[in-house]
Amino acid sequence: MDKPTLGTFKLTLAYDGTDFVGWQRQASGRSVQALVEEALSRIEGASVTVVGAGRTDAGVHALGQVASVSLTHSLGAPTLRRALNATLPPDVRVVAVEPVSPGFNARFAAQTKTYRYRIVCGEFISPFDRSFVWHLPVSLDVAEMRRASAQLEGRHDFAAFRSAGSDVTTTERTVLASQLTSAPRTEETQEILYDITGDGFLRHMVRAIVGTLVEVGVGRLQPDDLVEILASRDRQRAGPTAPAHGLFLIAVSYGAAPRMDAPLERDADELA
Amino acid sequence: MDKPTLGTFKLTLAYDGTDFVGWQRQASGRSVQALVEEALSRIEGASVTVVGAGRTDAGVHALGQVASVSLTHSLGAPTLRRALNATLPPDVRVVAVEPVSPGFNARFAAQTKTYRYRIVCGEFISPFDRSFVWHLPVSLDVAEMRRASAQLEGRHDFAAFRSAGSDVTTTERTVLASQLTSAPRTEETQEILYDITGDGFLRHMVRAIVGTLVEVGVGRLQPDDLVEILASRDRQRAGPTAPAHGLFLIAVSYGAAPRMDAPLERDADELA
Repeated sequence: MDKPTLGTFKLTLAYDGTDFVGWQRQASGRSVQALVEEALSRIEGASVTVVGAGRTDAGVHALGQVASVSLTHSLGAPTLRRALNATLPPDVRVVAVEPVSPGFNARFAAQTKTYRYRIVCGEFISPFDRSFVWHLPVSLDVAEMRRASAQLEGRHDFAAFRSAGSDVTTTERTVLASQLTSAPRTEETQEILYDITGDGFLRHMVRAIVGTLVEVGVGRLQPDDLVEILASRDRQRAGPTAPAHGLFLIAVSYGAAPRMDAPLERDADELA
Repeated sequence: MDKPTLGTFKLTLAYDGTDFVGWQRQASGRSVQALVEEALSRIEGASVTVVGAGRTDAGVHALGQVASVSLTHSLGAPTLRRALNATLPPDVRVVAVEPVSPGFNARFAAQTKTYRYRIVCGEFISPFDRSFVWHLPVSLDVAEMRRASAQLEGRHDFAAFRSAGSDVTTTERTVLASQLTSAPRTEETQEILYDITGDGFLRHMVRAIVGTLVEVGVGRLQPDDLVEILASRDRQRAGPTAPAHGLFLIAVSYGAAPRMDAPLERDADELA
């Protein structure tokens, strides 16, 4: 007979994706999920499974990944956070622990996710940025990229912006915000931030969008081409997949309160 | 007969010290100096020696290390910078290359150096900060630390703040500025920045000062104790040596123009 669940918790996690094979536990390699499950299992004294809101790929970072877990031990949230951070390696931190209603599932209850992609343009970039931005030794037309990014807002079929190998029932997603800003990073470099919020993301979707926006930035595509590319549903028409290390999972939203019932229909393998 | 020197250059370097044994070339291990010399030697087609303004220890970072080098090839400064950055690994970047008068020596001509030490106080720190700040899970009395840091300005004998193993002729140094500031880093953490500018630094001097300021911050020492510690010339009286990974060599100053003659008397083994 199962032990009774004494507490369900929502964990907010930050990690430097550099040395991870990604969020998801895999046959081999260092995954964030496995480390968090091992740390929780040590506290629980039994095997524990966590559910992550989104699967981040190898090299992708997180400031606000969310995971849910049910424990039979009745630890207070502050104690649990302290215990987890004492156990986890320093490239994963548990930023917040909140008690939630039993049955809360970080993946199915997620309403929106926000990703940020960082690009730095210039001859060279800071050694301290090398694992956290995509370095492009060219100058990009930010105004044109901004115009292109706006084309993505709304409900669209994003089949042209997903990598093969995912097995989803629909490739339609709603993008609530798709915004590009830029500012000087150093005297000689320009940083471009691309922020996208959506109700779900296909495999490599954000990185394919960024690769396409960069094609616009260098003039190989026009902003209006985005409409055609969306309509084509053809991955070959969009730009290349931008490298993983410029991408950050910033936040996952659950509305006013975590929703415990009526989980949204959600595809099996979302990978931004 | 030596080939004629066609160009002497002042290189400004930034590096992430995490994966280095330090600036200086050593019998074994990855040093910044060796990588820069190898990159220059490849360009020169012959062995090249660079002189660094200051030797940074293993794990210490740099935003503005300065090195000098004489080359027989007449490359323009922008070309040399581009060639170096194309050859060097991404954790070392050549930020600036300037042609200087023949005989310019980055070490002997240096007038002042500025170091910054970063501390973050809180239960845990961001995974992205882990290699670049000293994490202290306590709260520090910043006002008291600031008072203590001010005691160090001026000409003093810093024998109490140096590590053994250095063989210097004098332990007197002039500290031109010793300043501490603090600001929230996140909702739950506080960052403390300690900036020190001096005409020279003894081995581990900045880190011993920071370790001592932290003793003041936790209340084990009083600000006025700094005067006594300086007078004692006793390393045992000062605080522990702070970890290397919070320390950054920020800048080296050469006055209005690099000084080519009358090098300052400088000790053999300066290690901050």
